[in-house]
Amino acid sequence: MSKVVVSLGELMMRLKPVDKLRLRQAQSFEVCHGGGEANVAVSLACMGIDSRFVSALPPTELGEQATIFLRGYGVDVSQISRIEGRMGLYFMEAGADYRSGCVVYDRDNSSFTNLEASSIDWDAAFKDAGWFHISGITPAISIETRDLAVQSVKEAKARGVHISVDLNHRERLWQYGQSADQVMPEIVEMADTLIAGRGDCRACLGFSPEGDGSEDGWYEELSAEAMRRYPNLERVAVTIRNSTSAERHHWKAHMRTATESIFSRAYDMQNVIDRVGTGDAFSAGFIYGCFTGRSSEDTLNFAAAANCLKHTIIGDANLVSAAEIDELANSTTLGRLRR
Amino acid sequence: MSKVVVSLGELMMRLKPVDKLRLRQAQSFEVCHGGGEANVAVSLACMGIDSRFVSALPPTELGEQATIFLRGYGVDVSQISRIEGRMGLYFMEAGADYRSGCVVYDRDNSSFTNLEASSIDWDAAFKDAGWFHISGITPAISIETRDLAVQSVKEAKARGVHISVDLNHRERLWQYGQSADQVMPEIVEMADTLIAGRGDCRACLGFSPEGDGSEDGWYEELSAEAMRRYPNLERVAVTIRNSTSAERHHWKAHMRTATESIFSRAYDMQNVIDRVGTGDAFSAGFIYGCFTGRSSEDTLNFAAAANCLKHTIIGDANLVSAAEIDELANSTTLGRLRR
Amino acid sequence: MSKVVVSLGELMMRLKPVDKLRLRQAQSFEVCHGGGEANVAVSLACMGIDSRFVSALPPTELGEQATIFLRGYGVDVSQISRIEGRMGLYFMEAGADYRSGCVVYDRDNSSFTNLEASSIDWDAAFKDAGWFHISGITPAISIETRDLAVQSVKEAKARGVHISVDLNHRERLWQYGQSADQVMPEIVEMADTLIAGRGDCRACLGFSPEGDGSEDGWYEELSAEAMRRYPNLERVAVTIRNSTSAERHHWKAHMRTATESIFSRAYDMQNVIDRVGTGDAFSAGFIYGCFTGRSSEDTLNFAAAANCLKHTIIGDANLVSAAEIDELANSTTLGRLRR
Amino acid sequence: MSKVVVSLGELMMRLKPVDKLRLRQAQSFEVCHGGGEANVAVSLACMGIDSRFVSALPPTELGEQATIFLRGYGVDVSQISRIEGRMGLYFMEAGADYRSGCVVYDRDNSSFTNLEASSIDWDAAFKDAGWFHISGITPAISIETRDLAVQSVKEAKARGVHISVDLNHRERLWQYGQSADQVMPEIVEMADTLIAGRGDCRACLGFSPEGDGSEDGWYEELSAEAMRRYPNLERVAVTIRNSTSAERHHWKAHMRTATESIFSRAYDMQNVIDRVGTGDAFSAGFIYGCFTGRSSEDTLNFAAAANCLKHTIIGDANLVSAAEIDELANSTTLGRLRR
Amino acid sequence: MSKVVVSLGELMMRLKPVDKLRLRQAQSFEVCHGGGEANVAVSLACMGIDSRFVSALPPTELGEQATIFLRGYGVDVSQISRIEGRMGLYFMEAGADYRSGCVVYDRDNSSFTNLEASSIDWDAAFKDAGWFHISGITPAISIETRDLAVQSVKEAKARGVHISVDLNHRERLWQYGQSADQVMPEIVEMADTLIAGRGDCRACLGFSPEGDGSEDGWYEELSAEAMRRYPNLERVAVTIRNSTSAERHHWKAHMRTATESIFSRAYDMQNVIDRVGTGDAFSAGFIYGCFTGRSSEDTLNFAAAANCLKHTIIGDANLVSAAEIDELANSTTLGRLRR
Amino acid sequence: MSKVVVSLGELMMRLKPVDKLRLRQAQSFEVCHGGGEANVAVSLACMGIDSRFVSALPPTELGEQATIFLRGYGVDVSQISRIEGRMGLYFMEAGADYRSGCVVYDRDNSSFTNLEASSIDWDAAFKDAGWFHISGITPAISIETRDLAVQSVKEAKARGVHISVDLNHRERLWQYGQSADQVMPEIVEMADTLIAGRGDCRACLGFSPEGDGSEDGWYEELSAEAMRRYPNLERVAVTIRNSTSAERHHWKAHMRTATESIFSRAYDMQNVIDRVGTGDAFSAGFIYGCFTGRSSEDTLNFAAAANCLKHTIIGDANLVSAAEIDELANSTTLGRLRR
Repeated sequence: MSKVVVSLGELMMRLKPVDKLRLRQAQSFEVCHGGGEANVAVSLACMGIDSRFVSALPPTELGEQATIFLRGYGVDVSQISRIEGRMGLYFMEAGADYRSGCVVYDRDNSSFTNLEASSIDWDAAFKDAGWFHISGITPAISIETRDLAVQSVKEAKARGVHISVDLNHRERLWQYGQSADQVMPEIVEMADTLIAGRGDCRACLGFSPEGDGSEDGWYEELSAEAMRRYPNLERVAVTIRNSTSAERHHWKAHMRTATESIFSRAYDMQNVIDRVGTGDAFSAGFIYGCFTGRSSEDTLNFAAAANCLKHTIIGDANLVSAAEIDELANSTTLGRLRR
Repeated sequence: MSKVVVSLGELMMRLKPVDKLRLRQAQSFEVCHGGGEANVAVSLACMGIDSRFVSALPPTELGEQATIFLRGYGVDVSQISRIEGRMGLYFMEAGADYRSGCVVYDRDNSSFTNLEASSIDWDAAFKDAGWFHISGITPAISIETRDLAVQSVKEAKARGVHISVDLNHRERLWQYGQSADQVMPEIVEMADTLIAGRGDCRACLGFSPEGDGSEDGWYEELSAEAMRRYPNLERVAVTIRNSTSAERHHWKAHMRTATESIFSRAYDMQNVIDRVGTGDAFSAGFIYGCFTGRSSEDTLNFAAAANCLKHTIIGDANLVSAAEIDELANSTTLGRLRR
Repeated sequence: MSKVVVSLGELMMRLKPVDKLRLRQAQSFEVCHGGGEANVAVSLACMGIDSRFVSALPPTELGEQATIFLRGYGVDVSQISRIEGRMGLYFMEAGADYRSGCVVYDRDNSSFTNLEASSIDWDAAFKDAGWFHISGITPAISIETRDLAVQSVKEAKARGVHISVDLNHRERLWQYGQSADQVMPEIVEMADTLIAGRGDCRACLGFSPEGDGSEDGWYEELSAEAMRRYPNLERVAVTIRNSTSAERHHWKAHMRTATESIFSRAYDMQNVIDRVGTGDAFSAGFIYGCFTGRSSEDTLNFAAAANCLKHTIIGDANLVSAAEIDELANSTTLGRLRR
Repeated sequence: MSKVVVSLGELMMRLKPVDKLRLRQAQSFEVCHGGGEANVAVSLACMGIDSRFVSALPPTELGEQATIFLRGYGVDVSQISRIEGRMGLYFMEAGADYRSGCVVYDRDNSSFTNLEASSIDWDAAFKDAGWFHISGITPAISIETRDLAVQSVKEAKARGVHISVDLNHRERLWQYGQSADQVMPEIVEMADTLIAGRGDCRACLGFSPEGDGSEDGWYEELSAEAMRRYPNLERVAVTIRNSTSAERHHWKAHMRTATESIFSRAYDMQNVIDRVGTGDAFSAGFIYGCFTGRSSEDTLNFAAAANCLKHTIIGDANLVSAAEIDELANSTTLGRLRR
Repeated sequence: MSKVVVSLGELMMRLKPVDKLRLRQAQSFEVCHGGGEANVAVSLACMGIDSRFVSALPPTELGEQATIFLRGYGVDVSQISRIEGRMGLYFMEAGADYRSGCVVYDRDNSSFTNLEASSIDWDAAFKDAGWFHISGITPAISIETRDLAVQSVKEAKARGVHISVDLNHRERLWQYGQSADQVMPEIVEMADTLIAGRGDCRACLGFSPEGDGSEDGWYEELSAEAMRRYPNLERVAVTIRNSTSAERHHWKAHMRTATESIFSRAYDMQNVIDRVGTGDAFSAGFIYGCFTGRSSEDTLNFAAAANCLKHTIIGDANLVSAAEIDELANSTTLGRLRR
Repeated sequence: MSKVVVSLGELMMRLKPVDKLRLRQAQSFEVCHGGGEANVAVSLACMGIDSRFVSALPPTELGEQATIFLRGYGVDVSQISRIEGRMGLYFMEAGADYRSGCVVYDRDNSSFTNLEASSIDWDAAFKDAGWFHISGITPAISIETRDLAVQSVKEAKARGVHISVDLNHRERLWQYGQSADQVMPEIVEMADTLIAGRGDCRACLGFSPEGDGSEDGWYEELSAEAMRRYPNLERVAVTIRNSTSAERHHWKAHMRTATESIFSRAYDMQNVIDRVGTGDAFSAGFIYGCFTGRSSEDTLNFAAAANCLKHTIIGDANLVSAAEIDELANSTTLGRLRR
């Protein structure tokens, strides 16, 4: 079997005031980098998986800075073009207790939006590839990136690479005249693994179960319906979050294959440090489990523990090792200081 | 009706070690500015209300720095004199969990204490004024500021401006030979709106209800008694806080008019970031609701939500918009990241 | 005579790594705000002049943050629209010794570029105006801002407001198909005061003197030629910089009226802290001198001292008082600690 | 009775990334100093006790820095040698919520490991001493420090100084060929006061009670067994921690004398800021109570309150006064801001 | 001979914006502590001299913080009272290049101004004392501190302690109705060693030489005249500074005894980091040399090198060892990195 | 021709107080990584050269952090073992003006010192190698690293790889019983390119020219003698530094081949930001020039410009591109802000 996990998407610079300061109070910004698929690529590299990220960055010092971040954490950056365009940015104000956080996107006209499918060397991009991951962010940005996303999935398919799609629906991004449910089904029809949050299937694929009244039952219906509608899917994973404040989130995940329907251990987080990229941390953990041949249950619990740890890591990507994730997944002793 | 909310009081510079460091550990201080009535002025400006602050600051770079803060957030600073005296200061050590925070005041002989009622152009101070707000801090500082406070309320009264008083009792401040209950009744007799915390009426106005055993009942008796004793009052609001650690506070408010007696939604805060100025945030929210003609219930819930948000804002003033307050007041989905 | 100095242009957010770190090393950015005409507006406000800035900012927290900056330093922000578009940004890497600094502009599609002359209430913009200032930056950005710039000068002219133009040529900005010398002459023909750096006249107005061999002589010919070609001009000022490293600059200015041709005191700066906005500090000082009726010599020396001080102020705007500028202009004792 | 509390051990420099950053993300480290017995010495000095620390530090600027820390907080440093060797270090990554913290020790070949018993002036070390404290860390480091520890206890014994031992077992430290239970009994046989955590007696002294099923019962059996085996002991104290995340710890202590068996007030901490040195804070509080002649109950509750406060203090040592500890121990009103 | 150098004066907290930011821009302040005589005490302790500081500090956390600073660097703080009053403060804005720095004093009503001579245990203050140092700051603050200063000199005199006085004239401080020349002569009449800057003798002692035209000659006349007028003096030292910008100072010193008149090596400093306390660093170096029995020439050159090094130390006190000072005094190789 | 430049040596973590604070004042350290040969590897990667670093790092988070640094800047880290041992450290205090900086090494028993030649896969280490670089640091550390250094040079020689040696003599490092001149000649005998500072040849190779009185002449004799004694050498480069303060260094370089003897452009640096690694920056630039086939003159001037730029880069490695170096090497306009 081949060895590299490939992902394609946009990497942005994130600018966030220190502590819990509001944007309007900021005299400085903490800088990090992130983006749905990039977070998956970095997380996988930290887990010890060969990870390649296909993207575009501007030919400036800002593109250099972003490259240093990805390469430092071990991601193969050889398929990232340095082409004209802006560095995609987003400004983030952390929430606190009852106050919601907010994000100001500033990603229009980035180099990534100028990346054309025809300019990519797909053979190089998929060299030794065993898995390809993409999210619903890329097709949402612009017509050009929509075409790039569809083409990338076709190229992976043509090479027999396993394809995972995280629907990752963001209403605010779909501004170019199409809605998610006009675009995403074509992509999901080519996928082998589907990852979705609570409202994603309704928004992207146009269905939502009635439910039998129980919360778990609703999620089981959801995954069953996805498998029915997209028989190409080997498995579906659904993430389930309930938050009661900016720092307190209850989280678990559900997964269905042709023969299994299971729920992960639930985590009752009470001091969320940075919730950005937690879904991507789940995706990375989920891919890791599948890719290394773990059982469904081990995979789902590994992915849930990865997600849980990401809530404590500053930045968008989950900078933890597979051993650390396993330690949490298998542990009931919590909050120790290892010394 | 006229358009400006006027407040009068002292603005201090606050010096606080970073994070949860003790004062004795500090090698640097974070700087912000605050003071009861100033916090109300800034909060109202952030909500979009025309807000004017009457005060005095020293003719130094420190006075300049304070002015830049107020003006930046939109407060009309034209009635702030720059006169001899110190910049009032306070040093603050944040509490944490079971450890109490503490404040070291250093405000003696500030420019504000040198501000004489006779030197103020009251017509300019109350130009276009529709509301005047003052707290129990100013009369507590010195004989001079006591006279200034009394005179300011008389000047407002003479011009038919609605007057709100926040009793805001601080035992440590009354050092000049009179106690609060010798001074505050005269001021409250001229007020239209009264705001008080649990022990304020006993300390400032000399009464405290027996209570019927229920906590809510006690607060209802308190407000009823206040209305009985001060028939000039249109309404009374009472703030109700229970804290179990530096970060965990339970908070709600009560309000009475001639015809209504209501309680706000309660907030169970578990990650208080900065509790200074939360009472002032309530006052500002309460004034906002009354001033813009909202119903009593909407006003009280708006003010409670404003108070709740302030607990997450670093600094003394509540740097949030009316829309953000309404979002919390009307929401049951909490802790989201808006993106 | 009327009392307000009006300027029109774009305000950007500046993002700079701390100390002398390169952009690629940055884990945080220091934030400030600046832009040619905005710097002039802020500087004048700090000198005690009524100053109004006409511009557009995005309707986001970033626009709010920028407004707080301008308003805090006393600029009238009532004529700044909050309209769709990005917050203009620029990233800056400070130079050091023999290493050049660099700027990465990221200002395309800002709210300011969406500001149309027809949407401005010119009567409000020029209410009580006695002087209007604009620079060569605005006409360089886009066709739309070129039209805005030209129209603003016409509107000022129609109201009899004194007009100053700082050519401020930036080769990299002229990307929309016209060069500076196709646009700037029309503007300069309406101006009363012209400010230029060494190469600006050649680039913007198409002329450059032969010179008689002496450096001062060359500048005198330059200003004389400008006065000849644009007889509408009351005066011309030219800034003269020679730098031998990032921190060591030699600076003086020249000025010509119909009857005078003078040079300012020269400053031999050896520890430049922040050279951005130094030209704008000169413009502000020059406008201050003219506007307050100083003699040409006093005006030029005041403006040169303002420029000199700006080299030591962190940020784009010259946050010094007129008294501080006069102190330097009139002093030969340097480097004291006033205590 | 004599007046000084003496302790002997190693002081290390601690290097920790800011906030909750991982070591791999760090571009800077916060510096503080700590070590089991040094923390006790500093805590006692902050409580107003004359406190002397016997140790060795390198003859470099790093040794100077460490000395300044100890001396600043009032510890007598006259018996700290400046001898060849490294400054002991440890790197610390704070845990967060479900993520464990971790420590990377870097203390091999420190000056302290070069400190020989024969080079110490024991008369000077124990001048005016009324109490001697040592922990199980020192005998664990190396054969040399084991000998130093044993000798120090003998020297104290010979001078009739009360001896307290905190077992403080760290599995990772015992690397020189002996296990804790081969070394610690000899030391405990000379002690008057014993302090132990849950698993310490099994690891260091070779016994662990069966228990009657109740948690409290198990601890009572533990202390009873210790008193039986070591009849020299006047008292035994046991610390009892249950943590459910990095920030949430439940904590109380148990104590036994010949005639008493009591439990302290329990603390349910929900926002642990820095858990390092909390055991040492308990030891210091316990010594304080015994040394100043408080009753067992008062002593135990004082020590428990000291421990609780340390969880909120940044750094290894408990920088609080005895009055602050008493305030918590005697209070039921929590989380106030004293102003 | 006795062993301790005693000094008496006020210790203040210094608050300074980071880098070269102006006070009005500051969102945080760097904290350190200083004061003329305190700087001498700390410097001497760093050089290895037993150093005692007699003063008063407030009984608050701010007094505690100040005590930790002094004690940390080895100063004997046993004679510092903790009495009612404020912590003396000063705010400092660093100068840069042609921009002057400035200081905003905020020291009125400090604990030190409440320190009465009668409350000091002079025998304890001068126990084992061999030298007493005071500056012209203390007599300048208030009538009370003037009396304290005079009395302290008398007490030293009565005990045969060598007395040094640094005139250290600050025009702005003499606000209580007397001028320096009405107070300082009485003090200088009791002194053994006098230290003065260029204008100090005229302001404090009422004389200033005509001079023979040469700069050195003028200083020689100055010292000769001082010796003539105050025959009690063993020696006079004069500091000679010429600054051309905030960072560039030329510095040397002159000294006269009954038999010698010498000048120190001159230093041409080009990157002054912190000029506060440089005069005190000279005083400390000068006292060190005299106190340890060095020749006049060695003493003066040691003191000059100490002064030079202080210009590079952040904070008010000269945190360098005697060995480091000797290294500079005896070296011609400069700017090395010792590794 | 082959394509990779290989270097072998130790990478250390550097810990430095912020700004110009002394180590004893530090409450935090800035972290970066460096080491002679590692600096060369990183610099070459930044210039666009394929660069591989052979070394060993500990199997801890500190080793991970170091790897992220190297990999981020593009260095091939595949031949870095993660083996037992410490992370080598050094603490650095920056000098300022007349105050010397200093370094406290803490590198004993690092993982690198445990790296044995026999454990290295030399074929992998030199795969595609065209150049091998080593410095005199590695043979100085210990007997083991001496053997490793000698063996590495032999392995390179056996594979026909061009070998450069930077003598880089550090007296303090040679502690294992041999002096530099007993070890280095064997290595230099195998080298093709030699790089040396002023005193290096005398210390490492045992010769030093008499000189003809002129400084340039002395350096010409030095290089000629090196070529005579080591006929295997293709070229010799000598670096020539004169510093007059911590920030002011005058720098140039000399070079000799069989047919040429030339001097580079000289740089008169007046604001040195970070002088560590400047010699390595020269080596990297020199290797770059030779490796890419530039003429001797171009190579030497390129290397000198690289060295000059490094003085302005924070950290040990020269994070600049070849284009930036060329710009300085070819430019006479200095200190511009590129915008």
